[in-house]
Amino acid sequence: MAGNPPPHFDRAAVIGIGLIGASFALAAKKAGVVSRVVGVARRKETLDAAVAVGAADETTVDPAEAAAGADLLYVATHVGTAAEIFRRVAPVLKPGCLVTDAGSVKAEVCRAAEQLLPKTVWFVGGHPMAGSEQSGPKAARVDLFRQHPYFLVATRLGGAEAVRRMEAVVEAIGARPMTVGAEEHDRILAVTSHLPHAAAVAVILAVEELLPDAAVRRDYSGAGLRDTTRVAAGSPEMWRDVLAANAAPVAEACRLTAAKLQALADLLAAGDIEGVAAVLTQAQAARQKLDEKEA
Amino acid sequence: MAGNPPPHFDRAAVIGIGLIGASFALAAKKAGVVSRVVGVARRKETLDAAVAVGAADETTVDPAEAAAGADLLYVATHVGTAAEIFRRVAPVLKPGCLVTDAGSVKAEVCRAAEQLLPKTVWFVGGHPMAGSEQSGPKAARVDLFRQHPYFLVATRLGGAEAVRRMEAVVEAIGARPMTVGAEEHDRILAVTSHLPHAAAVAVILAVEELLPDAAVRRDYSGAGLRDTTRVAAGSPEMWRDVLAANAAPVAEACRLTAAKLQALADLLAAGDIEGVAAVLTQAQAARQKLDEKEA
Repeated sequence: MAGNPPPHFDRAAVIGIGLIGASFALAAKKAGVVSRVVGVARRKETLDAAVAVGAADETTVDPAEAAAGADLLYVATHVGTAAEIFRRVAPVLKPGCLVTDAGSVKAEVCRAAEQLLPKTVWFVGGHPMAGSEQSGPKAARVDLFRQHPYFLVATRLGGAEAVRRMEAVVEAIGARPMTVGAEEHDRILAVTSHLPHAAAVAVILAVEELLPDAAVRRDYSGAGLRDTTRVAAGSPEMWRDVLAANAAPVAEACRLTAAKLQALADLLAAGDIEGVAAVLTQAQAARQKLDEKEA
Repeated sequence: MAGNPPPHFDRAAVIGIGLIGASFALAAKKAGVVSRVVGVARRKETLDAAVAVGAADETTVDPAEAAAGADLLYVATHVGTAAEIFRRVAPVLKPGCLVTDAGSVKAEVCRAAEQLLPKTVWFVGGHPMAGSEQSGPKAARVDLFRQHPYFLVATRLGGAEAVRRMEAVVEAIGARPMTVGAEEHDRILAVTSHLPHAAAVAVILAVEELLPDAAVRRDYSGAGLRDTTRVAAGSPEMWRDVLAANAAPVAEACRLTAAKLQALADLLAAGDIEGVAAVLTQAQAARQKLDEKEA
């Protein structure tokens, strides 16, 4: 809701202070939303980098140590690790603490939060539509979220009141808060994010199988193959967790896409050139619409 | 073959003087390979732009007029139009003229050249692995081909001698000539270029079907979907011709990719997380290899 007064938190803990966590910390500090940030990561180099770029004032490898006394807890680790973090911080959270996450799948994490966090805290599922091919706090940018959608999901921990508070945080860092149900969010992300990843994986594996010689693949590849498969270079651990947490809608989207690819193969094999042209024309229009400004 | 003396052509005709044709003209003029370029295109604005950027010295909309008296004929139109151009220029070609093309499918165009061009000229199939998302002579760059592979295919019109001459041209403009058989070239391009296009088409069509609301597609899309489907915004006419000219190997590559996507869907539906992880790990390694420098 536009016009919420900017909230203020004395002490924020950012668990998983990589690209997203550190960018949030930088933006929240600049906006005056948080005074002091405790950064958490497993590796000392990550923590040192978070301090060096000004995202963290203190650091620790212990989520519970960071969470104790925090007014705002921002969990920006891999989707698959959220439940374990909730378990570890639950005993130490201050009543009234606003807890949120930044994962790209929401139903599973919101269920885990409702089950594992104390009823005295608030939890709002969060998903900023922003990122970069880079990772780590050194790649953090104070404007990473600016103008981008930032999805928020209400839970039984704080409900709509907690969402309003989190909306004000999101507005303060320059993003566009959009409230959505967890299942709807995940059903859409299965299509717009998890499917493209799965398709890139399928393409690069087919390319490798059909052209076993890596030098041939390189010499004969242009921007088309590189763009189409770029996301497949992403972390297998992170993507395993994302796909597993959203398995049913992702599987459905993969199956529909496989059917479309098979149908195009059938048109080609049948020599149905006009059929091929119709498919390409429809795809061009759909792709161009993706980059259009809102009407 | 490195060390060929740079050949020289007094008069080159570039039929289809868009991005590729105009970049070739700029590079060939700068290298001293050609003295004078006649540019051909259907639209006056294209011809004016070709002159404005220095790619063409004269222009005409008539391929035969340009080809008459040319020592080098560079055909850079859509793959599907090459045969018609060969028919139109055949009666006027000077004996000894070196004819080449720049299409991304080679078997069909080489057969057409052998059938339609006079036995007194040379023809070498050509395919520069370079391009840009932009098109037209205004986007031309003198260094567009520099360091990129440039595939060459021998035909009965001039055979190996013609290829050696064209190799010298390719070296002079800074590209890497690589001689290949037409069928092998097309079988490889089906995988490295035509498959990624088909996959992008299948993904964007599935996205549109699953999410009919364009505003939802935009709000929920990040760089992943945009990168993965970028090529699908390309010209449907051009890609129809390319896919149709290489239908059988493209259909085979599409079918294998559809099977891989289906297999990933099956692993997800079965909850086989370790199986999903193994697929993602293999894909990451394959994708990273694409960007490695040659060993």
